[in-house]
Amino acid sequence: MINYPIKRKIQTKTTNYANLGMTLESDIEASNLFYLNHDIAVIHKKPTPIQVVSVSYPARNKAKITEAYYKTPSTTDFNGIFKGHYIDFDAKETNSKTSMPLKNVHPHQIDHLKQVTKQGGIAFLIVHFKVYNEYYLLPANILFTFWDEQHEEKGRKSIPYDTFKTSCHQVPFGYQPRLDYLKVVEKYLLT
Amino acid sequence: MINYPIKRKIQTKTTNYANLGMTLESDIEASNLFYLNHDIAVIHKKPTPIQVVSVSYPARNKAKITEAYYKTPSTTDFNGIFKGHYIDFDAKETNSKTSMPLKNVHPHQIDHLKQVTKQGGIAFLIVHFKVYNEYYLLPANILFTFWDEQHEEKGRKSIPYDTFKTSCHQVPFGYQPRLDYLKVVEKYLLT
Repeated sequence: MINYPIKRKIQTKTTNYANLGMTLESDIEASNLFYLNHDIAVIHKKPTPIQVVSVSYPARNKAKITEAYYKTPSTTDFNGIFKGHYIDFDAKETNSKTSMPLKNVHPHQIDHLKQVTKQGGIAFLIVHFKVYNEYYLLPANILFTFWDEQHEEKGRKSIPYDTFKTSCHQVPFGYQPRLDYLKVVEKYLLT
Repeated sequence: MINYPIKRKIQTKTTNYANLGMTLESDIEASNLFYLNHDIAVIHKKPTPIQVVSVSYPARNKAKITEAYYKTPSTTDFNGIFKGHYIDFDAKETNSKTSMPLKNVHPHQIDHLKQVTKQGGIAFLIVHFKVYNEYYLLPANILFTFWDEQHEEKGRKSIPYDTFKTSCHQVPFGYQPRLDYLKVVEKYLLT
């Protein structure tokens, strides 16, 4: 597999917005595989929940699903363990230059991250500002503050880019692992 | 469709075992919901991984999957957090009176449970002996010992029921939660 920087850039351009979502996800999955292979952490993406309606059996031992629908996930996409700590997060992308809209986060994901935090887990979002090609680790407590205030008078419907710059932690994009978010977790979130 | 009682009886018999598997799974899921609602733990079943091949869009905003296949899970079915501890396990059932066959466990599940153990997680199986209607929590280290020895000269292809009786921990079946496996975890597995 050739992996010239310029080739990658072209791919990014042609695959555009739909696949950019895939790219953040696959960058995180590649990082998780690196962590796993180096005994650093065991973190996996959960499968997408699917409601199966009909299954046929055209060949022995090979069930073919012929009707099914995507379900809304009840938790976040990623979880696992890192040095004895429970890790739980989701990945979000935004095209905005100025903020991450809170509508990118589902209410049940907030509930889940709050439950995880209550149990002593490490909860956060990885946010990709596509315009700047910057990745930030947004600790759950900052997310909760903006989320809970959004319906108040002074509340906002988004988290400003400036908050990411000043109060969050940038995740460097590299080669191995591509997104070394656990370095950031270790430095800032473990107590 | 002819539906004589005798036919019906046959159907019930054939569906039997499949539904017992659902029952253990749903008993654990009900217990997890109890734990979640009482702020005791945040443990979820992972969705079944499905490889989607074709999707159609008969109505707006409603993707219909028209061809898909079940994939082999790469991890265990259940994970989460309990009092700051990462919890990871799978559920197994056996019809045997004398042992749990090791072929009930997939090699990748063993790999995964070993990785989790290395990171300091709490790993185990919940094993249901259907004949006795008894549930046991099998700590991962006992599982690993039998697994690793199975190809040796004195190795066995199964874990004897007697090992469950003497070295594992029975999980009581109750009302709320139905299977209070975290009580067993707290008593015997947390240090």
